[in-house]
Amino acid sequence: MCHHCIIENVKSGMLSRRDFFRGTAAASMAAIAVSTAPTPLFAQAAAPRKAEDLTHEIWETFPTYFGGQQLFIEQKFSHAKDTFNLNEWRISEHTGTHIDAPLHFTADGKSVAELPVEDLVAPLVVIDIRAKSAENPDSQLTPEDIKAWTDANGDLPEGAVVAMLSGWGAHVATDKFRNVGDDGKSLHFPGFHVDAVKLLLEGSTKAIAVDTLSLDFGASPDFIVHNTWLPAGRYGIEAVANLDKLPANGATIVVGAPKIKNATGGPARVFAFI
Amino acid sequence: MCHHCIIENVKSGMLSRRDFFRGTAAASMAAIAVSTAPTPLFAQAAAPRKAEDLTHEIWETFPTYFGGQQLFIEQKFSHAKDTFNLNEWRISEHTGTHIDAPLHFTADGKSVAELPVEDLVAPLVVIDIRAKSAENPDSQLTPEDIKAWTDANGDLPEGAVVAMLSGWGAHVATDKFRNVGDDGKSLHFPGFHVDAVKLLLEGSTKAIAVDTLSLDFGASPDFIVHNTWLPAGRYGIEAVANLDKLPANGATIVVGAPKIKNATGGPARVFAFI
Repeated sequence: MCHHCIIENVKSGMLSRRDFFRGTAAASMAAIAVSTAPTPLFAQAAAPRKAEDLTHEIWETFPTYFGGQQLFIEQKFSHAKDTFNLNEWRISEHTGTHIDAPLHFTADGKSVAELPVEDLVAPLVVIDIRAKSAENPDSQLTPEDIKAWTDANGDLPEGAVVAMLSGWGAHVATDKFRNVGDDGKSLHFPGFHVDAVKLLLEGSTKAIAVDTLSLDFGASPDFIVHNTWLPAGRYGIEAVANLDKLPANGATIVVGAPKIKNATGGPARVFAFI
Repeated sequence: MCHHCIIENVKSGMLSRRDFFRGTAAASMAAIAVSTAPTPLFAQAAAPRKAEDLTHEIWETFPTYFGGQQLFIEQKFSHAKDTFNLNEWRISEHTGTHIDAPLHFTADGKSVAELPVEDLVAPLVVIDIRAKSAENPDSQLTPEDIKAWTDANGDLPEGAVVAMLSGWGAHVATDKFRNVGDDGKSLHFPGFHVDAVKLLLEGSTKAIAVDTLSLDFGASPDFIVHNTWLPAGRYGIEAVANLDKLPANGATIVVGAPKIKNATGGPARVFAFI
């Protein structure tokens, strides 16, 4: 079955969505090798030579989804007085470049600390929707965008983290990161479309990542992506930085998720290795 | 110069300590190749196949150096009431498996957020002092222990993180992790000796790591290791887990240090790749 047919059949439900990740049918199997070996930890065969930091620095008024300040730093010891510096933070779990664990949108799903280490290291897929996002901040990453990626790069790797590159990372220090509408309330930035997320749920994708403040697009009225993805036991990464410095395929992401008991999320140090 | 001579000369100051890291003299140069190529990011040539989590889970009463509770979790939104869970943390920067940045013991050294990414990925050297630590909790990792490691494994890798494996990680959930003395105040757990740290300062070691609550041994009256190592612009990692699962040489450490502005430290997610 040709790639051009697949997306139509996926939309009409005629094709098993799992086929989308498995090299589809015989014709494309010839071109796209599907490994039956155990999933390797890294996307590369040789050790990576370069690291990219996918983490924004968090300052006290780092932009937040809800709009209020979510980090407060209090100095408890000072070098001048005590011979050492030490601060205490008061911080929401969902601040800066951070994780959304299944527990964030479930009664009893996995906390961040319960995510297996193997889920924090993965091949990184970068899907570039900058062109349409620049035209329309309410853009969403759709099944067609995934199709465009597989057309160019072959099947999605097993156990990948799939990241949306909307270009919003460049706005992190400006009002455009939240992009409040004329009504003074609504937010306008890109996110995953629920149909893309449903498609990814049929495969082995471990996490979705965005360079915005939410897995859902800003104008979403119902957190439908959060409510579809997280209860399935997968996790998310929000406000990822520097996705524009990465190849569409071939990098490995390492997610330094904080290991705090019962955390629904948490500021993470995220790297890509190339 | 033979390896047996080196340690004596290091102690007597007759030998440049830098030689200790550079293959020393001609005789040992033949046996120990010194690369002039740029330092690779990973210790391995091939991509790693396995990840170890070097991070303890942090619970609210995780043992602390000062003894008091350093993590307080407050639920702000609940799934039952709000359709999602979200907590706020109040946490000291120096809690759980965490970083000590140069700023911790300097007026204006580098914060955690200012550590270059290249310093957060390094060959990991594990120096095993479990035997003497089991006999004496006030043991310190000395130049002789480094010498024993180089005798067995060759020169310290360029830009390594050098970790002390004292066996103390096994005690994290018990009173023995702090091991308060009969005086009710003094702490008794192993740490680096200042002479070992001075030796490492002559080389390119990026960080030192311990499986205890402090870079200094618990009974230290003066934080001499902190005050020697951190002002030199190097950093530390405390309360590292699972060092006993690693080879003495050949693993790569990835330090997911939190990127919070002006942080003197911070809970980190730390991995070793094998």
